Amino acid sequence: MTSGVVIGVIGAGRASDVAYAAAREVGRLLAEAGATLVCGGLGGVMEGACRGCTEAGGLAVGILPGAVAGQANPWVGLPIVTNLGHARNIVIAHTAQALIAIEGEYGTLSEIAVALKLGKPVVSLRSWSDVPGMTRADTPEEAVRKVFALLSGRNP
Amino acid sequence: MTSGVVIGVIGAGRASDVAYAAAREVGRLLAEAGATLVCGGLGGVMEGACRGCTEAGGLAVGILPGAVAGQANPWVGLPIVTNLGHARNIVIAHTAQALIAIEGEYGTLSEIAVALKLGKPVVSLRSWSDVPGMTRADTPEEAVRKVFALLSGRNP
Amino acid sequence: MTSGVVIGVIGAGRASDVAYAAAREVGRLLAEAGATLVCGGLGGVMEGACRGCTEAGGLAVGILPGAVAGQANPWVGLPIVTNLGHARNIVIAHTAQALIAIEGEYGTLSEIAVALKLGKPVVSLRSWSDVPGMTRADTPEEAVRKVFALLSGRNP
Amino acid sequence: MTSGVVIGVIGAGRASDVAYAAAREVGRLLAEAGATLVCGGLGGVMEGACRGCTEAGGLAVGILPGAVAGQANPWVGLPIVTNLGHARNIVIAHTAQALIAIEGEYGTLSEIAVALKLGKPVVSLRSWSDVPGMTRADTPEEAVRKVFALLSGRNP
Repeated sequence: MTSGVVIGVIGAGRASDVAYAAAREVGRLLAEAGATLVCGGLGGVMEGACRGCTEAGGLAVGILPGAVAGQANPWVGLPIVTNLGHARNIVIAHTAQALIAIEGEYGTLSEIAVALKLGKPVVSLRSWSDVPGMTRADTPEEAVRKVFALLSGRNP
Repeated sequence: MTSGVVIGVIGAGRASDVAYAAAREVGRLLAEAGATLVCGGLGGVMEGACRGCTEAGGLAVGILPGAVAGQANPWVGLPIVTNLGHARNIVIAHTAQALIAIEGEYGTLSEIAVALKLGKPVVSLRSWSDVPGMTRADTPEEAVRKVFALLSGRNP
Repeated sequence: MTSGVVIGVIGAGRASDVAYAAAREVGRLLAEAGATLVCGGLGGVMEGACRGCTEAGGLAVGILPGAVAGQANPWVGLPIVTNLGHARNIVIAHTAQALIAIEGEYGTLSEIAVALKLGKPVVSLRSWSDVPGMTRADTPEEAVRKVFALLSGRNP
Repeated sequence: MTSGVVIGVIGAGRASDVAYAAAREVGRLLAEAGATLVCGGLGGVMEGACRGCTEAGGLAVGILPGAVAGQANPWVGLPIVTNLGHARNIVIAHTAQALIAIEGEYGTLSEIAVALKLGKPVVSLRSWSDVPGMTRADTPEEAVRKVFALLSGRNP
C-alpha cells in the first residue's frame, strides 16, 4: 500500500464550528483525491480534517506531540507518537508535500513559516494571510484545488 | 482507514542476505496479521521488512532520519520525513506498540534500550540478546508469534 | 558557574552589515548585563551576536542544527550539537527566557511564533513586526533594555 | 568565554549513595581539568556530577527532557530546555566529545550505544560493560584519566 500524495493540514487545537466544518470538508476532498492526510493529530482543525478524511476512506496520519497514542483524536487512522512537543511540527512540515492552513494562531504561524522555509507550498484558508509566499483560498474546494495546482507546478 | 496494531522492525541499514530474507518474512507475516509496520525506512533490514510487508498488501511506514522522502527504500508505503537524525529512533520506539530486532549494531542496541525503557516488548531475532528484558526468537514465525503474544499479555 | 538570565538572539544566517553590527552590539550589551546568550550558532545575525557577547567576556551558546561542533561560528563559546535541523529552533525558544529578533526571514518568523506560543517575551529589532504580541525596538540599546523590562514584568 | 573540552556524564536519575559520590568526584575532576560537563540535568548521577563540577567552579550544562528550566537539579549551571523527552539523549551524545557512564539502566545503555555509533569514546564506571567498544574504569580518577587519554588518541 502506498500513501500517494501527502498533504498537511494545520490549524489550532480549538476551532470554531465553522473552522471544524471547513477542515472536515478539506479532509474529505483530500481523501477523495487519493491523498494521505498528515496533521498534528489533536483536536479542533486537526480533528475535523481527520474526520473528513477517515469518513471518506482515506488515511489520516496524526503526528502527536506527546508520548502516548491515546492522545490522538478518534479519527486518526495512524498515530505517529513523537514525544517531541512542538518540534513535531517540524516533522509535519517535512513530511507533507504541501500544506493547507485553516485559521490557527501562533503554532500555526510557526508551522507555516517552517513550511515556507522548506519551500513547501502553503494555502491559507482564513489563516495568517499577510505572510509573503502563501496562497489564499476562500473555500475548502478552492484550498484543495490550489494545493494540487501548486504541487503540479501550475499557477493556482 | 485505521492502522491496527503498529509493530516496529529495527536492524542495521546494511544486512546479510540471511537477515534481509528474515526481515522480509517478518514484514510479510506482520502484514498478513493486519499489523502496520514502522521502521527507519532505509536499507538492509528496514528494506527487507518493508518489502515483505508491502508485497503482502500491508502498510510499511518509514520514519526517515533525513530531510527528503526520496531517502526511503522503494518499499516504503508512507514516508515520515523527520530530519532528526538518530533522534528519529526515539519516534519509532514511541510509535511502535512492540518491536522486533533483527541482527543490528549500535543503532539497533540504542533503539532496543529505548524501547525497553518505554516498557515496550522487544523480540530479538539474532540481535543483541544479552540485554535483560528481551525475548529471544529463532525464526521469523517465532518472532511474530511472540510479539503478538507479548502484546496480548500472554507468556510468549 | 551559573548562567544567569538566558536571552535568545534570532535572525538570519546571512545578514547585512547593519544587522551584523546591531547583533554584535546586542551581544555585547547582554554580556555586560550578565546574561548568557543562546542562538543558533551559525553565521549572520547569530555570529554577530556571539562575537559581541564573547568579546565582552560573556558566554555565547550556539545550538547547532547539524551533527558537528565545527559548524559553529568562531565566536561560539559553547556549542550544543543537536543534529535536529530546524527542530533545534524549538530548543532555542524553550531555553531562552526572552528573545530578541534581528531582521530575519521565514526561519526567524517561525521561531518568533514558537516563542510567543510558549509565552516568552520577544523584542523585534527591525524584524517581523506585524505579529501581534511582539515588542518593537529601534536600536540595540532599546532592544536589550526592553527585553529585561519584559522579563521583570515591567511595561517596556 | 569558551567551554574547552566538553565531556558527557550519563547515568540513572536515581542513584545509590556510592554512585552519587562517584559522579560528584567525576564532576570535580572534570572541572579541575578545565572541561565543561554536559549531562541530562536531572537527579541521581546527573546531580552528583553537576554538584562536583559546580563546587569546583566548572560549568555544568543540563540538557533537560522537559519544557521548563525548573526541572534541573540545583547544581546545573546552564539549563538547555529541550522538551524532547528521551530524544534529548541524542543531543547529549552529539554535544559531548567523550562520555563517562556511571551505573545506569536502559536509558544509559541507549545513550552509550548512540555515543558509540557516533564514534565517541565511552568510559564505563560500573556501568554496562559487556558492550563492545567501551573502556572500563574502576574509580572516578581512572575514568577521567582514561576519557582524556581516549580524546588525545592515546591508549587508555
